[in-house]
Amino acid sequence: MAKEKTSALHKNKGASQSEDMNARAIKNIRSKRNTQLNTKTLVASILKRDTVALSRAITLIESKHPSHIKQANTLIEACLPYANQSIRIGITGVPGVGKSTFIETFGKHLTSKGKRVAVLAIDPSSSLSKGSILGDKTRMEALVKDEHAFIRPSASGDSLGGVARKTRESIILCEAAGFDVIIIETVGVGQSETTVHSMVDFFLLLKLAGAGDELQGIKRGIIEMADAIVINKADGDILKHAQLAKIAFSKALHLYPKKASQWTPKVTLCSALHNEGIDAVWNQISDYIAITSENNYFKEKRQEQNKFWLIQTIEAQLSSHFFNRPDIKKELQKQLERIEANKTTPFAAADYLLNL
Amino acid sequence: MAKEKTSALHKNKGASQSEDMNARAIKNIRSKRNTQLNTKTLVASILKRDTVALSRAITLIESKHPSHIKQANTLIEACLPYANQSIRIGITGVPGVGKSTFIETFGKHLTSKGKRVAVLAIDPSSSLSKGSILGDKTRMEALVKDEHAFIRPSASGDSLGGVARKTRESIILCEAAGFDVIIIETVGVGQSETTVHSMVDFFLLLKLAGAGDELQGIKRGIIEMADAIVINKADGDILKHAQLAKIAFSKALHLYPKKASQWTPKVTLCSALHNEGIDAVWNQISDYIAITSENNYFKEKRQEQNKFWLIQTIEAQLSSHFFNRPDIKKELQKQLERIEANKTTPFAAADYLLNL
Repeated sequence: MAKEKTSALHKNKGASQSEDMNARAIKNIRSKRNTQLNTKTLVASILKRDTVALSRAITLIESKHPSHIKQANTLIEACLPYANQSIRIGITGVPGVGKSTFIETFGKHLTSKGKRVAVLAIDPSSSLSKGSILGDKTRMEALVKDEHAFIRPSASGDSLGGVARKTRESIILCEAAGFDVIIIETVGVGQSETTVHSMVDFFLLLKLAGAGDELQGIKRGIIEMADAIVINKADGDILKHAQLAKIAFSKALHLYPKKASQWTPKVTLCSALHNEGIDAVWNQISDYIAITSENNYFKEKRQEQNKFWLIQTIEAQLSSHFFNRPDIKKELQKQLERIEANKTTPFAAADYLLNL
Repeated sequence: MAKEKTSALHKNKGASQSEDMNARAIKNIRSKRNTQLNTKTLVASILKRDTVALSRAITLIESKHPSHIKQANTLIEACLPYANQSIRIGITGVPGVGKSTFIETFGKHLTSKGKRVAVLAIDPSSSLSKGSILGDKTRMEALVKDEHAFIRPSASGDSLGGVARKTRESIILCEAAGFDVIIIETVGVGQSETTVHSMVDFFLLLKLAGAGDELQGIKRGIIEMADAIVINKADGDILKHAQLAKIAFSKALHLYPKKASQWTPKVTLCSALHNEGIDAVWNQISDYIAITSENNYFKEKRQEQNKFWLIQTIEAQLSSHFFNRPDIKKELQKQLERIEANKTTPFAAADYLLNL
């Protein structure tokens, strides 16, 4: 719960507005707010980079109403030919590491270079509170006002899988709306990093310098997923600590075998607050894109991710359909008790349940 | 393939013989070799610690013949009340690390302490050659001859899941045959370590001292699964290297958060060839058993493992049943191509396939 309060992405419900907004389209959308939205108009507006239309479209994706689901599917299909042209960056880090400040400074750096930046979030914990916490609007203030940026709070949903699907569909819409860089923030709860990792091109781990125990308590597998580790707040008195942390993390990265991308992850220092080291992060990402475009890993990874999500979605639904059957629910508990009492094996119990 | 040739567990097809062997039972078994084995007799012989009967029972488990499968299930069910009383130890390490020598010395150490030791193996690569390579019988010579030891080569099967099931069922039979310690060797191919890890109480990683780059090339996740790292061949000129390797591995272990078992994995040196440091390994395992019995983790882990295998088996079968449907096979390829051409999303494609 504490994590939700510190995540900037719950604060601003798509508040950024583009100047080239289509006034007629907005009027049109508003008049139909409580009725069925016109899909064609919405797609046209998204392609015209209308961020209000984009926001409404994402809301449609998030809806559970059957007619909305149908409309959302049509919408995504219409946007698909315009998607896939962005760079997708995942950013993770524990609360307090300065994710909001980093994303704001990094985002402003990109928009100053003429890039259009969308920020999405995956936060399974927010699904529990149904996104009810809105919080203050002071975080990412400059990026919120930036007409080349779009910030969308975490999708709500019943499961991480559901949230993941919505986020992944939102990426398609953002890409159709002409965003060049999509940043996906995760608050690091549960399996959220793995989920984000499986939908981005580049995965960045944001860290703080500590008192020499930087590596303690890092969630399993996070370091080996990272394409870059950026140590934030590396300024003033902490700079020396940050330099030591850099050495420790570099050694930790060294423990892992070479990545399939042929990319060697690096550790860099930055101070998002003082806008130091941000350009180096972007240069690193640009290098990564260049190398992985050259060796075709960039495209292969996206295809792998597509296949992963296809198989994953099917398996999750087969499993959920099976284990939600009332007869299975009842018998599963009985079989577990029988296993515990040495009356059956997990395999025999599985055969029994599958034959019900 | 090279791994098979160096794994001792392909060499000895249950050749160890117990002195308290039931002569009548053997005669009985031999006479019925080509017909149906009598399940009751087999169970009785296993409970009498007859290792020839145990070998025949494991062969039944490995059979794909429907009548054998039925008999095997009856057999396992009859043995279950006598199972679960052993300590299950997983041992992994790359070829050349001296696994056979270690298991032989370690096994002899245990039998000298009055323990009865069974050695099984998980080797997915052997399933490809259907266990046709038998090799020489010179490895683990002393353990093979030891009447308190039982060595069984890797089960063959079409999939790691299949091999895993057979190994796990073999554990039950070995336990019913009164073995106190079950050692499960893995040759470290594919996902075999994870599979072994999910069926043992204690997981031991065997390593060699190198030229300071010990940590390079270690398969992802292996170190964090280890309850102990034992550096073998720590003698003579290599001792100094081994001591440095010990420091490096201790630091690497330090990177991971505290285990749910409350056990802190340790790094120790040994020379299996010179029988040095072997007692320390067993003392460590005994400490582990004491700690995790006290905090109930030992029992909880076994229950977790049972639940894991139950769910895992069901999910694998649901998935394999779905993806082996001829219509799905055909449409899956088409949908993957549509995704690649930006004509659909993985989620829409999944919905489509599930509705076929």
